Amino acid sequence: MKKVAIGIDIGGTNTVIGVVDQEGSVLAKGNIPTGKHMDVNLYLDDMQAEINRVLDFINEEIEVMGIGLGAPNGNYYSGAIEFAPNLNWKGRVELVNLLKERFEYPIITLTNDANAAAIGEMIYGEAKEMKNFIMITLGTGLGSGIVVNGEMVYGHDGFAGELGHVRVEKNGRECGCGRRGCLETYCSATGLVNTVYELIGTSKLPSVLREKVHQGEVTSKMVFDAATDGDELAKEAFRYTAEKLGTALADFMTFSSPEAFILFGGLANAGDLLLKPTYEYMEENMLSCFKGKVKLIQSGLPGADAAVLGSSSLVWQELNKEVLA
Amino acid sequence: MKKVAIGIDIGGTNTVIGVVDQEGSVLAKGNIPTGKHMDVNLYLDDMQAEINRVLDFINEEIEVMGIGLGAPNGNYYSGAIEFAPNLNWKGRVELVNLLKERFEYPIITLTNDANAAAIGEMIYGEAKEMKNFIMITLGTGLGSGIVVNGEMVYGHDGFAGELGHVRVEKNGRECGCGRRGCLETYCSATGLVNTVYELIGTSKLPSVLREKVHQGEVTSKMVFDAATDGDELAKEAFRYTAEKLGTALADFMTFSSPEAFILFGGLANAGDLLLKPTYEYMEENMLSCFKGKVKLIQSGLPGADAAVLGSSSLVWQELNKEVLA
Repeated sequence: MKKVAIGIDIGGTNTVIGVVDQEGSVLAKGNIPTGKHMDVNLYLDDMQAEINRVLDFINEEIEVMGIGLGAPNGNYYSGAIEFAPNLNWKGRVELVNLLKERFEYPIITLTNDANAAAIGEMIYGEAKEMKNFIMITLGTGLGSGIVVNGEMVYGHDGFAGELGHVRVEKNGRECGCGRRGCLETYCSATGLVNTVYELIGTSKLPSVLREKVHQGEVTSKMVFDAATDGDELAKEAFRYTAEKLGTALADFMTFSSPEAFILFGGLANAGDLLLKPTYEYMEENMLSCFKGKVKLIQSGLPGADAAVLGSSSLVWQELNKEVLA
Repeated sequence: MKKVAIGIDIGGTNTVIGVVDQEGSVLAKGNIPTGKHMDVNLYLDDMQAEINRVLDFINEEIEVMGIGLGAPNGNYYSGAIEFAPNLNWKGRVELVNLLKERFEYPIITLTNDANAAAIGEMIYGEAKEMKNFIMITLGTGLGSGIVVNGEMVYGHDGFAGELGHVRVEKNGRECGCGRRGCLETYCSATGLVNTVYELIGTSKLPSVLREKVHQGEVTSKMVFDAATDGDELAKEAFRYTAEKLGTALADFMTFSSPEAFILFGGLANAGDLLLKPTYEYMEENMLSCFKGKVKLIQSGLPGADAAVLGSSSLVWQELNKEVLA
């Protein structure tokens, strides 16, 4: 009987559900909208139905070991989603407890999406042999999952790893958190687009994006495409993003001296356009005892399934802990 | 038979040796000069003689479990002091290996002074019940020892916890590391004194320190005494130090979300003069999910013996690991 884990990635728009084996193969996948119901129980009705539908797809004999969930503001210790600004449900949602009423699986566990990505990288990806690394997720915001001595860093309250809110610029850009100059206001899909707006205003660099802003929303994908085509302003936007990110990574190094920083998420898919200059700025700004020591790599989790793989990996991680305990 | 550990604190000027029991009582103590010999073997001859002399002092039956050493740039993994700028011996000094040739104790282990302080705090001090905290040592520079999930954070190379070299000011003060704006250029005994010099130049604040600078070296103790007496400039120097430190601690919180920051070392002895405003700046700058959660306290290790206690605690820490393994 094949052991499998159910991985659930709760995003602002969609919730993706996947059944994953220990090697990281996705056996079946489905999804439901996240924002349809204001009542979390109706949402969980949908989720339960979809899980059963997805499991029915699988033709081989399986043993479901548990459910791993990744969600914005998901707290590993409490098993609750706590005050997530981009989800319908306000306050605390006791997700793990609510799911335990519906499923009898030995493990039902939750963390935030960036931590799930980090664990996914340890179980299936680039960090299989690493005991110390930092996952940086570059999506709408900047998330991070920190691994020290082979263990996830949750901190005393479950909220560790909020590196997107390290302030890198005094009186810098306004952040959704109410403060200014947070790293994620520069280094994220949103940050990149805002850098384009800023450069349109402050520079004379020629750009196809100067027209695009009048035709509707500018996306980070547009900036990437323009930069790839040699657009001066788009290239400068990437350089600026890399400068902010590389400089910050150099300082993060002083904390846990990881073996690697692993970039994940939409903006990380820009590849060398972002990675190469980020590495250069990081090395230039590094304390000398750390120079030339740390790798900067792209996530090894396959793009489309990365989030579900990350969530499912929580189950194997918990099983490993039980074996060790 | 009483189990004891030998703690050795290697400072730039003096090396202090203490024999400590599991409760943190120092049974006997001695010291040798650190800088007398350029040849490390002659230094170790002195150390060996002094260890034997100190052990002879003890009247009860003891079993020596090992030697724990704290030294600037001491690397836990390699057991070597690596390129310490303030010590005579250049390059790498294979301290643990050299001592193993001289002593048969089951444990001989080394780390840097800030990590030793953190372990001391876990074994004997304020952090006995804590699994997540950050020790900040405010001496000539700013050192740090980070504990996550009950374990010391060494990173993949043994150099983690260099928070004194997080840059907090763009184009800020020149640092010994060759970069600018590092936290320790502001928040350390040296940093405080430099703030006084800066304030003498940039402000009209009245101060007894304006005279003192012409009479010889200004020390952090003089600044403390002046501030305690209500000296305007000295008080402003402490406020400025607290602003820099509190703001930095708020950002450090996003990393490992510790239960407490514990301040240690000369400047920490300023007590509320530093702690109170630092706490206020920290809370003011904190990401909202961390507000009101973290303690800021002074080390619980008794001042005169703190460093030796820290070093000795390495031995108990290693023994604990062996029991768990």
